[in-house]
Amino acid sequence: MQKDHHVVVVGGGFGGLQLVNDLKGVPVRVTLIDRRNHHLFQPLLYQVATTVLATSEIAWPIRHLYRDRPEVTTLLGEATAVDKVTRTVMLANGPAIAYDTLVLATGATHAYFGHDEWAPVAPGLKTLEDATTIRRRVLLAFEQAEVEDDAAIRDALLTFTVIGAGPTGVELAGIIAEMAHRTLPGEFRRIDTRRARVVLVEAGPRILPAFSDDLSAYALRELDKLGVEVRTGTPVTDCTDFGVMIGDEFLPSRTLVWAAGVQASPAAGWLGIESDRAGRALVGRDLTAPGHPEIFVIGDTASVKQEDGSPVPGIAPAAKQQGAFVARVIRARLEGRPVPAAFRYRHQGSLATIGRRAAIIDFGRIRLKGALAWWIWGIAHIYFLIGTRSRFAVAWSWLWTYLSGQHSARLITQKETLRKEGDAGRLP
Amino acid sequence: MQKDHHVVVVGGGFGGLQLVNDLKGVPVRVTLIDRRNHHLFQPLLYQVATTVLATSEIAWPIRHLYRDRPEVTTLLGEATAVDKVTRTVMLANGPAIAYDTLVLATGATHAYFGHDEWAPVAPGLKTLEDATTIRRRVLLAFEQAEVEDDAAIRDALLTFTVIGAGPTGVELAGIIAEMAHRTLPGEFRRIDTRRARVVLVEAGPRILPAFSDDLSAYALRELDKLGVEVRTGTPVTDCTDFGVMIGDEFLPSRTLVWAAGVQASPAAGWLGIESDRAGRALVGRDLTAPGHPEIFVIGDTASVKQEDGSPVPGIAPAAKQQGAFVARVIRARLEGRPVPAAFRYRHQGSLATIGRRAAIIDFGRIRLKGALAWWIWGIAHIYFLIGTRSRFAVAWSWLWTYLSGQHSARLITQKETLRKEGDAGRLP
Repeated sequence: MQKDHHVVVVGGGFGGLQLVNDLKGVPVRVTLIDRRNHHLFQPLLYQVATTVLATSEIAWPIRHLYRDRPEVTTLLGEATAVDKVTRTVMLANGPAIAYDTLVLATGATHAYFGHDEWAPVAPGLKTLEDATTIRRRVLLAFEQAEVEDDAAIRDALLTFTVIGAGPTGVELAGIIAEMAHRTLPGEFRRIDTRRARVVLVEAGPRILPAFSDDLSAYALRELDKLGVEVRTGTPVTDCTDFGVMIGDEFLPSRTLVWAAGVQASPAAGWLGIESDRAGRALVGRDLTAPGHPEIFVIGDTASVKQEDGSPVPGIAPAAKQQGAFVARVIRARLEGRPVPAAFRYRHQGSLATIGRRAAIIDFGRIRLKGALAWWIWGIAHIYFLIGTRSRFAVAWSWLWTYLSGQHSARLITQKETLRKEGDAGRLP
Repeated sequence: MQKDHHVVVVGGGFGGLQLVNDLKGVPVRVTLIDRRNHHLFQPLLYQVATTVLATSEIAWPIRHLYRDRPEVTTLLGEATAVDKVTRTVMLANGPAIAYDTLVLATGATHAYFGHDEWAPVAPGLKTLEDATTIRRRVLLAFEQAEVEDDAAIRDALLTFTVIGAGPTGVELAGIIAEMAHRTLPGEFRRIDTRRARVVLVEAGPRILPAFSDDLSAYALRELDKLGVEVRTGTPVTDCTDFGVMIGDEFLPSRTLVWAAGVQASPAAGWLGIESDRAGRALVGRDLTAPGHPEIFVIGDTASVKQEDGSPVPGIAPAAKQQGAFVARVIRARLEGRPVPAAFRYRHQGSLATIGRRAAIIDFGRIRLKGALAWWIWGIAHIYFLIGTRSRFAVAWSWLWTYLSGQHSARLITQKETLRKEGDAGRLP
């Protein structure tokens, strides 16, 4: 390898940032490209969607994180292709960027299982804009119900459907129910927000399938206490402006949220390599593209097998471990030391919260549930937030919500067109 | 007046809220209609546009403010017309609302002096969306300059033009310059943000014409210290995607901000009464519409003369005083007491800040400038913020910015399409 080795990283998520962090002190130039100017702490995105946190509390300008690393250049850019022969990344908004080592950490988005026409009706939750869109629709549904004279339309406005009962779906449904039943009553005069229905639909046999049976059953009981109606074992067959088809039954519901499927970014296509059903690039045990040891694919856009043949899960800790692994490989190569042959994933546990007071944690041998789990979850997440300012702000927001029961981020932004609900269905 | 007197207030700005606040204890039902779900603290909006504050720090859900006032109903609604005969307000998104007393407090927006085609190129600053649009464009200009290879395009990207040198224009220009020259250097590798130009254009002979000559001259010197280029005495004659015509000279500049003109909301048109050049409804000295003592117009959408014939200025304290006056009139009428004949405006002073350390205050007899004025300005604004949580959050954000020099609200949100700058001009 030459002296002025240039590592190009596409994607400033958990994997990309861990890699760049761990390259500190390694004699390389780094260019970090992202089409957003911010790193997003996705595990808390559902709290922005449900008015607990503000956008600025869970996202940070990427270039600010590396202000003291002169060898790191941050570019706001949209990668569109990779030329493996000339070793360059193409950008939609600027010149091609040449690399010596390329790391693709471009993440995933939500998938509608061949029903992309559902996307505008049932937004998913991957970006800050997704979160503010969901927040706007949830808040506008209550607002419009307060103005609406037609009882059937009002009921549909006050029915919220979350599709998919993984951690994100459970967390969303729990907080929407809490908002309707505990935060908002007393602020409305014509409607009783406690009559709002929150329906959580899951095609599989039980909620939170990644957790053990008993934790899943506990979460179900907690959701029931919060007033969430859970429907398992029935797939959603249609999503429209006016409601959702659950199996053969139509549920009038003006606000749908999609938390069901995941689709990898097109990194595999850029490289011309094989991908799995979710579009994840099939890479080797050392996370490199077949035949291209200078190209790594990590995080949600990579499909990697563990030693026992099971896939590495698409969660933040896995992406961070992969970023750290690639940094070790680059360092070893530059120093001419033996290069680690295979990435090994260490599962640290699974966490999910149900509303404001309960959580479940599965560390494998140790399982926790209830208020203690909620506090551990909260402290762990504050610990992983970047920057003292955000830690302080989020801790303060949570304490405020915990003690006052009030949500502090209830603004409806983006231009909305107000109109009679009889005219059309979807809220803006 | 009947027992169940219904006061309908359209507009939840400073005037509308003061009125509803002061109607506490008065035996009336109140319906407060706004097309936004939030009250906005407009005097600090420029700090959202310039990445100092987050949106949630200067805006609050209106219905939350009146949760403990069961006689107050808040409706998210877009008023479209008033029927003075049947005494009803028409809504775009719901049933007509009947009133006994109507108060229109619908505010103003920015005006382009017959050049509405400039609006998409040179956004003004009246709403949260305006502020996030300006913030996005300012941040994207720096980002795109970092990627751009063409020197001329890069220079145009690094030239920021603020049109209009009233308090808002001066405040915007000051903070953009501070951001370019003090906050951002060190985070960019290919450009030197200190080379960015901030140009403040004013058609009139001097900046801040509402202030005395010496305070205006002081502000000019402070802007100069911050690196702002001030051009007075020359009107802007065109705004395009690529720059601005100042008199006969074309200045290549990709980011324009409009802080020049004001246009009242269409309240005068709804009532079919006369308006002044800026569209403000000409109301009587008692703020009622001619021939309709049950209809009041207050705040930026009303044109009211003082005793000496000069107009009441379109600023927050004037709107609040008018709201308080109307509450007194309604109370007096209901109690059968003598009704105050005319609104009297008490000018409490004018304030403006220049960057992070200097301000000017004109109390009439007392004039202040410099750091002391800045602290008085900051404390006064924190005092006027609603809610202990926001006061705390803003004080914290300012202290953070003051001590660290860092701005904390630097997210680019809303979907942006990235593309080569050679292709087209305007940033998304």
